[in-house]
Amino acid sequence: MSGRFRARELGIKTGLLQPGPLNGITDVMGVRVGHVTLIEGKTVRTGVTAVLPHDGDLFHEKVFAAVHTLNGFGKATGFEQVREVGTLEAPVLLCSTLDVGRVADGVVGWVLEHDPEMGKRAGTVSPLVAECFDGYLNDARARTVGPEHVWAAIERAQTGPVAEGNVGAGTGMSGFEFKGGVGTSSRQIGERYGSYTVGALVVLNCGRRQQLLVKGVPVGQALADWPGEPAPEGGSIIMVLATDAPLSARQLARVARRAVLGLGRTGAIATHRSGDFVIAFSTAQRVPHREEQLTRTLTVLAEDGRAINWLFQAAVEATEEAIINALCVAETMQGRDDHVRQGLPLDRLVELLYTHGYPSVRLPQV
Amino acid sequence: MSGRFRARELGIKTGLLQPGPLNGITDVMGVRVGHVTLIEGKTVRTGVTAVLPHDGDLFHEKVFAAVHTLNGFGKATGFEQVREVGTLEAPVLLCSTLDVGRVADGVVGWVLEHDPEMGKRAGTVSPLVAECFDGYLNDARARTVGPEHVWAAIERAQTGPVAEGNVGAGTGMSGFEFKGGVGTSSRQIGERYGSYTVGALVVLNCGRRQQLLVKGVPVGQALADWPGEPAPEGGSIIMVLATDAPLSARQLARVARRAVLGLGRTGAIATHRSGDFVIAFSTAQRVPHREEQLTRTLTVLAEDGRAINWLFQAAVEATEEAIINALCVAETMQGRDDHVRQGLPLDRLVELLYTHGYPSVRLPQV
Amino acid sequence: MSGRFRARELGIKTGLLQPGPLNGITDVMGVRVGHVTLIEGKTVRTGVTAVLPHDGDLFHEKVFAAVHTLNGFGKATGFEQVREVGTLEAPVLLCSTLDVGRVADGVVGWVLEHDPEMGKRAGTVSPLVAECFDGYLNDARARTVGPEHVWAAIERAQTGPVAEGNVGAGTGMSGFEFKGGVGTSSRQIGERYGSYTVGALVVLNCGRRQQLLVKGVPVGQALADWPGEPAPEGGSIIMVLATDAPLSARQLARVARRAVLGLGRTGAIATHRSGDFVIAFSTAQRVPHREEQLTRTLTVLAEDGRAINWLFQAAVEATEEAIINALCVAETMQGRDDHVRQGLPLDRLVELLYTHGYPSVRLPQV
Amino acid sequence: MSGRFRARELGIKTGLLQPGPLNGITDVMGVRVGHVTLIEGKTVRTGVTAVLPHDGDLFHEKVFAAVHTLNGFGKATGFEQVREVGTLEAPVLLCSTLDVGRVADGVVGWVLEHDPEMGKRAGTVSPLVAECFDGYLNDARARTVGPEHVWAAIERAQTGPVAEGNVGAGTGMSGFEFKGGVGTSSRQIGERYGSYTVGALVVLNCGRRQQLLVKGVPVGQALADWPGEPAPEGGSIIMVLATDAPLSARQLARVARRAVLGLGRTGAIATHRSGDFVIAFSTAQRVPHREEQLTRTLTVLAEDGRAINWLFQAAVEATEEAIINALCVAETMQGRDDHVRQGLPLDRLVELLYTHGYPSVRLPQV
Repeated sequence: MSGRFRARELGIKTGLLQPGPLNGITDVMGVRVGHVTLIEGKTVRTGVTAVLPHDGDLFHEKVFAAVHTLNGFGKATGFEQVREVGTLEAPVLLCSTLDVGRVADGVVGWVLEHDPEMGKRAGTVSPLVAECFDGYLNDARARTVGPEHVWAAIERAQTGPVAEGNVGAGTGMSGFEFKGGVGTSSRQIGERYGSYTVGALVVLNCGRRQQLLVKGVPVGQALADWPGEPAPEGGSIIMVLATDAPLSARQLARVARRAVLGLGRTGAIATHRSGDFVIAFSTAQRVPHREEQLTRTLTVLAEDGRAINWLFQAAVEATEEAIINALCVAETMQGRDDHVRQGLPLDRLVELLYTHGYPSVRLPQV
Repeated sequence: MSGRFRARELGIKTGLLQPGPLNGITDVMGVRVGHVTLIEGKTVRTGVTAVLPHDGDLFHEKVFAAVHTLNGFGKATGFEQVREVGTLEAPVLLCSTLDVGRVADGVVGWVLEHDPEMGKRAGTVSPLVAECFDGYLNDARARTVGPEHVWAAIERAQTGPVAEGNVGAGTGMSGFEFKGGVGTSSRQIGERYGSYTVGALVVLNCGRRQQLLVKGVPVGQALADWPGEPAPEGGSIIMVLATDAPLSARQLARVARRAVLGLGRTGAIATHRSGDFVIAFSTAQRVPHREEQLTRTLTVLAEDGRAINWLFQAAVEATEEAIINALCVAETMQGRDDHVRQGLPLDRLVELLYTHGYPSVRLPQV
Repeated sequence: MSGRFRARELGIKTGLLQPGPLNGITDVMGVRVGHVTLIEGKTVRTGVTAVLPHDGDLFHEKVFAAVHTLNGFGKATGFEQVREVGTLEAPVLLCSTLDVGRVADGVVGWVLEHDPEMGKRAGTVSPLVAECFDGYLNDARARTVGPEHVWAAIERAQTGPVAEGNVGAGTGMSGFEFKGGVGTSSRQIGERYGSYTVGALVVLNCGRRQQLLVKGVPVGQALADWPGEPAPEGGSIIMVLATDAPLSARQLARVARRAVLGLGRTGAIATHRSGDFVIAFSTAQRVPHREEQLTRTLTVLAEDGRAINWLFQAAVEATEEAIINALCVAETMQGRDDHVRQGLPLDRLVELLYTHGYPSVRLPQV
Repeated sequence: MSGRFRARELGIKTGLLQPGPLNGITDVMGVRVGHVTLIEGKTVRTGVTAVLPHDGDLFHEKVFAAVHTLNGFGKATGFEQVREVGTLEAPVLLCSTLDVGRVADGVVGWVLEHDPEMGKRAGTVSPLVAECFDGYLNDARARTVGPEHVWAAIERAQTGPVAEGNVGAGTGMSGFEFKGGVGTSSRQIGERYGSYTVGALVVLNCGRRQQLLVKGVPVGQALADWPGEPAPEGGSIIMVLATDAPLSARQLARVARRAVLGLGRTGAIATHRSGDFVIAFSTAQRVPHREEQLTRTLTVLAEDGRAINWLFQAAVEATEEAIINALCVAETMQGRDDHVRQGLPLDRLVELLYTHGYPSVRLPQV
């Protein structure tokens, strides 16, 4: 990925809080990300990304989770059950729009295979899958993704640095009429408030050129003449938030709603044909599939203290920076029908921010 | 209330579970109900009912709560905050439609008076008020209720048997074109499942004559020629559920949604101009207004066991029976413009059920 | 289906309104239903059911639609988009729980095949699929259903009488610990209110024996000793409503919420592990995929008249009767692990109702 | 208001679209705003603001409306009915938190007075009231507002320029630990897309100093040492959107959700104790209270065209600018307990933006 850098490598910092060591969703201990990237010939530009809250048996050790729909014009699946019972029981999978059914089926197959007792007592598993439409660069109608790719994404999922840009579900995506894709970021809150971490991972596929703001600078307008076919329909974004703060499903839903505020800072408006969804989970507690006892004891954040506000702040900031990272890292890609999405020109970006009063923004010397 | 009886006094039993000793919402330990009934001249037929989860300082010892809207054509207030933070911090008040603002203001005044520190640190309190429209018998435009009535209802609230029928908020209400009003009932679940109690209190103001079912018997159709002006608009119902089961706000919302199934058994259809709302709370835990610690430990029902299903069953049954109780207890009332609502004729009711295979149903010998 | 009868053939009538000529969802003009039933060896007892609002190109001639979730513990897909834009753009498919992804993918494939222009301009299609778990009789883990079955269900869909009981998605389902499956019913409202029809089609897989009420008669309790393994988890129900009344998406959501009241009349309580969903659509108007004009003119029901209430009444009644029909028509089935679900014994049912004051209920002489 | 200026008077422009002539919510034809400002002694710093969609009889000529709750920790009333039936039937009132009940009651009284037939046939009216907490500067516990102020606000409501800053409901509010209050702005969309206008009016009472962004410039951090007591709780914001585009209630809800994206651009994070609500209405059509016909013909925006996206863009931009306007116009105020909220120092603001690459930003020569 020569010549591409993350926002902070360019000196672009936003917000009040500090990122974790990796500045990624994997700064939340135990969280794993796996990508399968499919680039073949001139027409296959797609992939799958898996996000796992921990490396245990997620079906039997569920985590609290929540979803939020900013714009429901999307094909995400599994939202009803998360809303009802507030838990995540399968890996989160992200993919191309027309592949949601296939990917959901792949998750079911993977869980059945890895939990041979599941079908007997527990019966069913609820996959959680969200998508954006990579049809500008990818031959999305071909539905290239199969169960083997889903399994591979889940099994490759690992802690540590997360690949960004043209990988996994982000492979063929666009953002603000530049190349979009996967981006990630994180924030840590103060010791006094629990030293919790919030991490974000986005698949960025939304926005028109002219809308793009970076630190409020109208970068998109300044780059109006940069090559790139208009994307009048807009497109979607999936935002996944993870935290180690002990949040209930209700509290996670509150955090999820804040991702929208971070998205707003990038200039996005959630266009009509845009499936804009947020998925949030906490790694702090595990919920057994079956409980022997009548009641269960939980530890949850005391909401009346200030920690919840710092978690909100963290969610806003990590979401915003994950989006900027996706744009900064994703490189120019050519795909089907000779369609091309240019990577955001980092030299121009740096120049624009420099002239808008951010003297420490500059291209690293490679 | 000579000549009026509760359903079980008539031998009418529904459901699988047993009621508590009072067969009322006050079977949930600590729950208190207070009525102020206003009957004056020919036009005042209204009142206020207060339901309190405990006799402590509710603002500083909140309880978990949830709301459910079956039909939002109503003026209920306070729902947004319950949905967001899942707690109840003021007495639940029920009243006539046009009095909601006055009653909410009365609650605020009462809390301010009783919590002189509230305004300094905590700032605000969120009243929860719901209504039905008693305008057929009551001169609702006169808005007779004032803060003194709200205060009195709160302060009179007590444990023990709950007055039903033409009392409190139920004073001027109609049900299935008979006299409606307040009804209550309860159910207890087995020791194996925690010996929990679910209580319901309804203000019944909905339904057309022909829709009424009692134990599935089309009582309303059989009484089609009984006097009573049609109520083509239908009208509303407020259902309040209380339980001592340790339920989270999310779990309470699930219980609240089951009240609709109990309502369905009475033949109601939730007509267009009907504000049909459910309010549910648990007395099992108290949530402090301010928390010193970063986290809080909660005990909640383990949802994967079967206790939750028995709580659902209890909510359905208690709601249904509370509605039937309202009809059986409320006696004929004359109000404004010489409007009259007949009490459900118990002799006819008993006869109908007797001939429908319920031989133990009969009028008590007074 | 010797010896099985629909409720009305047994003289069991509920409600105030009259059914349409077929007493099925296909009484709504243009609505089509297609079943694929898979019964093989000892372990395959499953299928797929497709419901189509019209025989046109649904993607380019969408219909207004709404969804309602009574209990979200289910794997239904496509709900977000219906909530957001209020239209249905693909056939509704019903199936077994673990097959949802496969079936959704089958729908996508079918639409792509039948709309070769779709991928170029429009890009994506949103399948709407709901499920119940037939794992008691069917080897659900085998996921027998493939795209060919989805296609066949769609292509076989036809107007006219709808097969009920052990067909399509209902093949392996249970209801109240009897054999469940597909049921349908309809209601017509008066000429003065538009002569509209509401049809319901359910896949019944919910309920414990003791809960079952037919016309309020506690049939389930009376048949407590009839053979049948307990289903302590409860199970799910999918309710599909169709109407030719010109309802907006918001109005359809209101109608959908009334299905819950009809469900309540059968004694169901929506147990914890129950995905209880309602899908409603109107055939009255078609919404083009692309609109050339800036605005669109719609005809919608004037909600302040009384027609909306009759539509509510119709939805309640048709849902209730569809459930009873499923029970009455579905015959005893043996499936995996020698599990058996008994068909509701119609002679006992008839006897019970007869002794509960319904003298016209009787078994037809075959 | 010497020395205070609106954002555009300072050369601060945001977004892609042009404001209407007044750059206020009243650019939407027919919309009226009325303020009652109460400043007395040292402790009364409050008021009421009314927003009316038109000057007709709103109860009998309702308009389509929607609400959106970003954070429900607030006391707004009337939301259930707007969600259910999608219409606004009374003026929107904004006020101080503890006054919501009083103000709602004032609205009811006003409607009863002005519609003497209402109580007879129609029965009830649903007030829509939202609030922020002005308790830092105002003795909110005193609940100074009475029905006379509500009536006056409604009756003073007029078209034309809207007073901003320390007026009406904004009188005692804070924003980002500066003086907050009322702000307004508008955007017009292109002729090709219908020449529609979207106007926003906010009551700004949220945010911590360090969060404030103006055009992305971290103005709040730069002014960290400017006088002002911390507001650790955060506080609320009410956002009212008006448009003349012919939007249905569902479409208005989509527009309302976009206000959150505009709010995000100012750095706000929607803190825990924050009632953040959006109310949106369209003036394009009037819905009669009673309809003689069975059906009604509506004109709604064709959502698949691009106009909807421009309306979303307009909502985002107008909301953001209304917030900045509130901060720029509101002047320093002293209130109860000698609390002082400083007006945002415009000279510093201008300097900061100037040095961040916006050379045309400057203080007007007065």
